[in-house]
Amino acid sequence: MAGIGAEMLGWARDLFPLPRSLTGRGVEATLLYLSDRCPELEIKSVPTGYQAFDWTVPNEWNVREAYLEHLASGQRFAVFSENNLHLVGYSTPVDRVMSLDDLGPHLFTQPDQPDWIPYVTSYYSPNWGFCLSEHEKQRLPHGDYRVLIDSELSTGQMLYAEAHIAGDSADEVLFSSYICHPSMANNELSGPVLLVKLLQHLSQAGTKPKLSYRFVLVPETIGSLVYLSKSLDSLRQSVVAGFVLSCVGDERAFSHIETRSGTSLADDALRAAFKGRANPRYYSFKHRGSDERQYGAPGIDLPVAGFCRSKYGEFPEYHTSADNFDVVTERGLEESFDLMAEIIAAFEIGLRPRSQCLGEPQMSRRGLYPKTSQKGGYRDVRILMDCLAYCDGKTSLFEIVEQTDYALGDVVGAVKLLKENELVA
Amino acid sequence: MAGIGAEMLGWARDLFPLPRSLTGRGVEATLLYLSDRCPELEIKSVPTGYQAFDWTVPNEWNVREAYLEHLASGQRFAVFSENNLHLVGYSTPVDRVMSLDDLGPHLFTQPDQPDWIPYVTSYYSPNWGFCLSEHEKQRLPHGDYRVLIDSELSTGQMLYAEAHIAGDSADEVLFSSYICHPSMANNELSGPVLLVKLLQHLSQAGTKPKLSYRFVLVPETIGSLVYLSKSLDSLRQSVVAGFVLSCVGDERAFSHIETRSGTSLADDALRAAFKGRANPRYYSFKHRGSDERQYGAPGIDLPVAGFCRSKYGEFPEYHTSADNFDVVTERGLEESFDLMAEIIAAFEIGLRPRSQCLGEPQMSRRGLYPKTSQKGGYRDVRILMDCLAYCDGKTSLFEIVEQTDYALGDVVGAVKLLKENELVA
Amino acid sequence: MAGIGAEMLGWARDLFPLPRSLTGRGVEATLLYLSDRCPELEIKSVPTGYQAFDWTVPNEWNVREAYLEHLASGQRFAVFSENNLHLVGYSTPVDRVMSLDDLGPHLFTQPDQPDWIPYVTSYYSPNWGFCLSEHEKQRLPHGDYRVLIDSELSTGQMLYAEAHIAGDSADEVLFSSYICHPSMANNELSGPVLLVKLLQHLSQAGTKPKLSYRFVLVPETIGSLVYLSKSLDSLRQSVVAGFVLSCVGDERAFSHIETRSGTSLADDALRAAFKGRANPRYYSFKHRGSDERQYGAPGIDLPVAGFCRSKYGEFPEYHTSADNFDVVTERGLEESFDLMAEIIAAFEIGLRPRSQCLGEPQMSRRGLYPKTSQKGGYRDVRILMDCLAYCDGKTSLFEIVEQTDYALGDVVGAVKLLKENELVA
Repeated sequence: MAGIGAEMLGWARDLFPLPRSLTGRGVEATLLYLSDRCPELEIKSVPTGYQAFDWTVPNEWNVREAYLEHLASGQRFAVFSENNLHLVGYSTPVDRVMSLDDLGPHLFTQPDQPDWIPYVTSYYSPNWGFCLSEHEKQRLPHGDYRVLIDSELSTGQMLYAEAHIAGDSADEVLFSSYICHPSMANNELSGPVLLVKLLQHLSQAGTKPKLSYRFVLVPETIGSLVYLSKSLDSLRQSVVAGFVLSCVGDERAFSHIETRSGTSLADDALRAAFKGRANPRYYSFKHRGSDERQYGAPGIDLPVAGFCRSKYGEFPEYHTSADNFDVVTERGLEESFDLMAEIIAAFEIGLRPRSQCLGEPQMSRRGLYPKTSQKGGYRDVRILMDCLAYCDGKTSLFEIVEQTDYALGDVVGAVKLLKENELVA
Repeated sequence: MAGIGAEMLGWARDLFPLPRSLTGRGVEATLLYLSDRCPELEIKSVPTGYQAFDWTVPNEWNVREAYLEHLASGQRFAVFSENNLHLVGYSTPVDRVMSLDDLGPHLFTQPDQPDWIPYVTSYYSPNWGFCLSEHEKQRLPHGDYRVLIDSELSTGQMLYAEAHIAGDSADEVLFSSYICHPSMANNELSGPVLLVKLLQHLSQAGTKPKLSYRFVLVPETIGSLVYLSKSLDSLRQSVVAGFVLSCVGDERAFSHIETRSGTSLADDALRAAFKGRANPRYYSFKHRGSDERQYGAPGIDLPVAGFCRSKYGEFPEYHTSADNFDVVTERGLEESFDLMAEIIAAFEIGLRPRSQCLGEPQMSRRGLYPKTSQKGGYRDVRILMDCLAYCDGKTSLFEIVEQTDYALGDVVGAVKLLKENELVA
Repeated sequence: MAGIGAEMLGWARDLFPLPRSLTGRGVEATLLYLSDRCPELEIKSVPTGYQAFDWTVPNEWNVREAYLEHLASGQRFAVFSENNLHLVGYSTPVDRVMSLDDLGPHLFTQPDQPDWIPYVTSYYSPNWGFCLSEHEKQRLPHGDYRVLIDSELSTGQMLYAEAHIAGDSADEVLFSSYICHPSMANNELSGPVLLVKLLQHLSQAGTKPKLSYRFVLVPETIGSLVYLSKSLDSLRQSVVAGFVLSCVGDERAFSHIETRSGTSLADDALRAAFKGRANPRYYSFKHRGSDERQYGAPGIDLPVAGFCRSKYGEFPEYHTSADNFDVVTERGLEESFDLMAEIIAAFEIGLRPRSQCLGEPQMSRRGLYPKTSQKGGYRDVRILMDCLAYCDGKTSLFEIVEQTDYALGDVVGAVKLLKENELVA
């Protein structure tokens, strides 16, 4: 697996500067970049004004440039082309002169994190503003400023992308992430690059998988609602487990945001995969925040849990300019890939294996048990026997992890060996 | 709500001196006083000798006077008309002279609480006796005493009372308390006055409630058995939750005595209402002691939990002359009313609300969400979104409290606002 | 019950020297000795080569003598007739001269317990070897040795035994233990002697029991598989709970090895019986090790839990020559008998008693309640009322123990008294 983390990190670095939002050219460029790496990823669109349940797709937003220019000195501040976080998302066009005092309500800082630029949006209420660090704001010279926001809000399209890998079974595992945040690394790019790498992992495996897999990249909230409004009936019939991938690139924790019931197969999968991993953290559905909000809303009720390393909102750099490649690392991304690949392997090996024997099989004649029996001598084969003891055709591999306290990877490995010996099916 | 606690306390002070027992004029006076305050409360009776399941209603007991008179000095002790706890409940008539030594087996004290008069009864086995503080007993002068108990045990009636508030639904919430203890404040009068105040709260609301409500005041044990023997079939069909109100006037704790299963709607209601309240205490059905014993007995099986502040048997003044208005306070009664009123409000607002949207609704266009999105800015609306996330038509408000960890009153308030915005039904 | 422990200990001491293994004359002598004490115990057999599910019954193994003789000195070591643990189980015949160096791979010690002889077998792979203490091995003189193993592996039979006590109901409680270990006291003989004593307890009671009881003594693993292969269909229809008795003679703990679900009646029984006993220990099915492995294997799925004092593998003397009558005691055996006899009593008294009253019965007119009521006066009758409160015809005595926290023996006693008073049936 060497190189997978590096590859994902490279993609994230390439995509970092693009000016993503709910709509516009930054999203388009991001999706084109990713679909170049995985042609199964199909770019789709709905027109602005499209109605998705209770919501309406807003106008397309594009920005050429934006800044504050101090008239007396000609000095420019909060320059969009230098850092796209400087402009409040969906800012309306402006070109006028204002005093620093009058500018006040349009300047956003995060006073408790005075060195970092906050991330601010106003998607559904016309407004404009600039974001800058508290320290930079304190240093703004007095006097008049030219306020330039060369943006455009117009009818057009909202883009998203989807891929489907058909397996032997119509039962589907769903992965979903979002592509609407500007230059932030963990709370944006870690999710899409992991999702596309998992898609490659399956599409380039060379064999048809046992289950089907669906991959979705949407602008957060409005995008998942649009997607659900078009696909809900079929998703309801096929999705057995799903995962929203968000903030999956740091090394600090493994976080599970439960579905509403907390008892779905997706929840079991994450609990099992977390066994033996460092710093696991569990959050009830109350703590939802990304698109698991929509997938799990009343009436939608899909079994989709959230997976993060550090959970959004819980790490200090969240929604600021400090969410960069000091936070997201090659190792962080690769560990997340490994975890999700283990979950996929559990689905692929047969989620509920059934012993082919009545009673225990005689392991020793298969070379799976020590020939001479003395106390203390069974440790290496114990995992085989323990997994087999739960292979009743009803217990999932994730539940076997829970019962036996072995790591998911070890259980998957044991069941693979049992299968090769025709002891389970 | 100012004044509710004071009003209940006033009623309890008025009722305190009346000589209540299972039967007799003290019970009658108590019920007449309460039905004056709430005409919906209908006084009912069964004749003595009435058979209720395994039990027989005992004779009616009335007392004119009782005391011990020291013959040599003419001094009187344990005078019934000064404190009706001085006489063992259901004492048979006596008028004779006895030595202090011979009196011994008929004198009851609580040696571990030597300043207080204990409360003692002998309902079903003919006997007589006097209760006095251990210190008073130690000071009784030697010599002969005239023992006078001018009591009467005769055929007659056992009284109880019932009120029914019919709502849109036949589903009923039951409140039950008892009216058989003499001059004690928490373990008697707090229950009936809270019950009658809740009855007023519903009957004077001016609108027909959504659910139906039933209020029952009975002598403990024999009274609830009589009531159940007459009403069991209809109660079984209508009661969705019930509460025995006992010792609800102090400020020391909130106590929940679970139904046998511990999982009924009444249990959920109390657990939810206790969230965020000081000093909540939980007791299994093993610790039952008031009429939840009968409502929850095998074969009866009504979903009726016990609600106390300090649980009977657990506070030092219990069943002594010290159970007075130092224990029961205006604030204690009012807090108990507030808690029960919150539970009623949860039933009335619709116990299992259902979101009217697929996916989350767009709160911002309803003025329920901040227009500009920046981290840390959602605290005030979070409760709305969190409650809505569980409004799936299957989860009760009490379970939403459990899931979200918000207080019941806050959840009821949030669901009310969601309902006004037509977001739930 | 005085003498029961001593009797079991006497049997175990008699049986200790016999050279048991999966097959052979030691097993036969053991079963004959036990069936002499309880004629209900019927000795059965299958031929060697018999196929039981995935397993084949191995040849019959008998040993006349075995030792290592130092040629130079004539000194003998690891003499089988002195301690049958000295020979690896199922050793093939050998008679040749070898140097001490060449002997190395055939000498087994337990280096971390250097004074004790380990117990080693090689049932299913032809091999031979000697077991001795690490210290004895260190002291073996250099030079050549005559290796003599006068053993025989031949077609023949594998023996086991079964008893059935027919009760009013076809529902059965199963007890199973094993008879395949040579001279060890806890991890062998404690189980069979307890099993036979329980069988005597039922067969000599003089009355037909309410439930049926089945007792099985088999060589571990292969024997239970043989037994299951012959009896599975009927066991599935009749066994409501079962117990594998293993290592039940020490005084150190009470151990429960759960069935796979952990929720069977056998699990409930052990949890209830452990209440109030010293040092209870609970192990999930993951920690299975004796024949509960086979009874609970996927597809077999019988509700059979494991009962031990110190669990096999968890006490230091396990599988060594130190597992002797310093470990197993009269008191240890008798306490285990008492526990199992309590479980049998619970089954016999009627596992799910039902109150015969609606509401609580009036206990005082039956002399079961104090006639005068004063606080603090109910302690002795409380257990009666508490048990009765759960006698709903659905809750087992074991669950009543869990709910009320009384000991199983006390609950059985209370229900017996309630039954005598016709308050439950």
